[in-house]
Amino acid sequence: MSTKYVFGKDKHKKIGELLKPLAKKVLLVYGGGSIKRNGVYDDVMASLKENGIASVELQGIQANPRYEKVVEGVAMLRKENFDLVLAVGGGSVIDTAKAIAMGAKTDDVWSFFANGGEPEAVLPVATILTIPAAGSEVSPDAVITNKDRKLGYTSLQIRPAVSIVNPEIFMTLPKNQIANGVCDMMSHIFERYFTQTEHTDLIDSLAESTLKTIMRNALILMKDPKNYDAWAEVSLGGSFAHNGFLGCGRVQDWGCHGMEHELSAEDEKVAHGAGLAVLTPAWMRYVYPENKGMFFQFATNVMDIKSERDTDKTILAGIEKLQQFFVALGQPTTLRELGFTENSPLEQMAKKGAGEGFLGNFKPLYWQDVLNIYKACL
Amino acid sequence: MSTKYVFGKDKHKKIGELLKPLAKKVLLVYGGGSIKRNGVYDDVMASLKENGIASVELQGIQANPRYEKVVEGVAMLRKENFDLVLAVGGGSVIDTAKAIAMGAKTDDVWSFFANGGEPEAVLPVATILTIPAAGSEVSPDAVITNKDRKLGYTSLQIRPAVSIVNPEIFMTLPKNQIANGVCDMMSHIFERYFTQTEHTDLIDSLAESTLKTIMRNALILMKDPKNYDAWAEVSLGGSFAHNGFLGCGRVQDWGCHGMEHELSAEDEKVAHGAGLAVLTPAWMRYVYPENKGMFFQFATNVMDIKSERDTDKTILAGIEKLQQFFVALGQPTTLRELGFTENSPLEQMAKKGAGEGFLGNFKPLYWQDVLNIYKACL
Repeated sequence: MSTKYVFGKDKHKKIGELLKPLAKKVLLVYGGGSIKRNGVYDDVMASLKENGIASVELQGIQANPRYEKVVEGVAMLRKENFDLVLAVGGGSVIDTAKAIAMGAKTDDVWSFFANGGEPEAVLPVATILTIPAAGSEVSPDAVITNKDRKLGYTSLQIRPAVSIVNPEIFMTLPKNQIANGVCDMMSHIFERYFTQTEHTDLIDSLAESTLKTIMRNALILMKDPKNYDAWAEVSLGGSFAHNGFLGCGRVQDWGCHGMEHELSAEDEKVAHGAGLAVLTPAWMRYVYPENKGMFFQFATNVMDIKSERDTDKTILAGIEKLQQFFVALGQPTTLRELGFTENSPLEQMAKKGAGEGFLGNFKPLYWQDVLNIYKACL
Repeated sequence: MSTKYVFGKDKHKKIGELLKPLAKKVLLVYGGGSIKRNGVYDDVMASLKENGIASVELQGIQANPRYEKVVEGVAMLRKENFDLVLAVGGGSVIDTAKAIAMGAKTDDVWSFFANGGEPEAVLPVATILTIPAAGSEVSPDAVITNKDRKLGYTSLQIRPAVSIVNPEIFMTLPKNQIANGVCDMMSHIFERYFTQTEHTDLIDSLAESTLKTIMRNALILMKDPKNYDAWAEVSLGGSFAHNGFLGCGRVQDWGCHGMEHELSAEDEKVAHGAGLAVLTPAWMRYVYPENKGMFFQFATNVMDIKSERDTDKTILAGIEKLQQFFVALGQPTTLRELGFTENSPLEQMAKKGAGEGFLGNFKPLYWQDVLNIYKACL
């Protein structure tokens, strides 16, 4: 995990010092005005200035970030020489920064999202996290939406060189954003945890520990969103959820992420975390018969269900308890609550998600399976 | 954690391919003949040759590695140009390789062990692990003995660039070496886990998971030393125990390591793991009143002791169960079994270990404390 990961109170004020060996001029990418309201913007500018680092700004990145902003950023790289792209924001801002960095020597960044491959050169990326959720501060991944296609790209070249996580910054987040972030990071663990690979004791138990720590502390935050210590656990957990080590030595799934991407591609108002909160329990109920041992382990080790002789009963109690946890976070339980109905183009979305093949690995989900799960969530 | 960590069956045969971008000529450091008997040496030479990498050998590194071998290796660096030091062995071989690498531009490597500071240049180090124990394959540390001083040195400059862990290689290890390795890696977790730092939920639970996974699989290995899957869990656990992430955000202890180093400095036949197995339960009984909550957590979460209203009883049951685990591995419970008696220079060792100050942090151990613990172990 090559990212220099800097964690703790006031740490964002070190950005200039940390970037000094890497950059004389940075492209600063951020979203709306929240970093101006909470003082982070001023702190960053002061630290950059103090360390002699110039910056040019690209702002207005929105949730489910769009390729247009990447094009805009790449055009800026053509006009001036930048050494690094600095993202101050959440997953959308960081992913946009990564995609812009891929445009160091090419204007056609989208071709890598659509067709894979490695850009000839990528600028280094640094991040200051403003919402713990996507794990993009430590991951080699980015997800960008272009027209109606929401696609992911993965390369070690886009893993951030430096990331700063200061839990103090999260204390003003509204509860729905806390909830969405928690659901996203939990899903990053689920996508790795649920596997048909055998003999994965150590990583299984690390995943279980990370899930339980996030869940316990997320409930504290719903009552007390300014609790620094709970934020520290949740945000460190969010980074560990996606820094790669919980995926070591196992076939990963990523079916729920694939299904969710179609929801927010269809309606960009759908928050990724909310979509995952709806889909995940339905996915679990649909796929658990493929490996009851794995889901029994989840129910007893993560959800603390007392095991019963009736395996299915224990498993279903675990899934139900997880859904109730999402409800306690204020998340919906149905697609209807997210605005979908029988009249939504569910079949079309399922076909777009699964493509000619399938989503996921725990149980390969062909488009008919995806449609079944969507319908079960209505 | 910057080490490129390559894990799995047959992976040591990739060494040439992995080193090709880094080196044209390597100094190959190893111990006795075991790597020649088990075929690892031939595999390594074939892979280096196939990738056009020349090598010169320094062999004969022993347990509790001595500075003389470092001097010998540094002299070899002066005669020919090497790009990298390749260690094929356990912690002693890897630590020797790290110390030699520190001699890229200086003959006086010992001064850094004695006085700290950073060498002007360090050659990159690569490792192929032959016994999981010390965690040196992922750590920025080395421990070297010079005359009667056994000292550690830490710098990110000596963290290996590449490490290969293939559990197949461990299948021929004798049981006492398995036991010593397991005790060492468990101690690496204990030294981080037992802390007075508060609000460390996530790392606590990751440490607990790693300990439990190592212990469960170590007992499998005592019955079935050729069990690949158990070796995979134990050896991955050994690397995670010492790659640094279990030490994030907490004051660490390292008192038991400090006390043990004096045992094997006094008598180099004392295996580090065996010394730790004797000292650790005694240390726990001596220090637990400083923070009963921490040891209660250990007893219930790691040792699976059913908690009782009598806190001390629960804690002591946890420590006793740990000691019985060490016994199940075939470890001694007293210093007498390691050859020490009332006539051993225990006071002198305690004074040398604690110096003018103290060992450890959970409870600072002045020389009188260290002597008390040594005596409690007789």
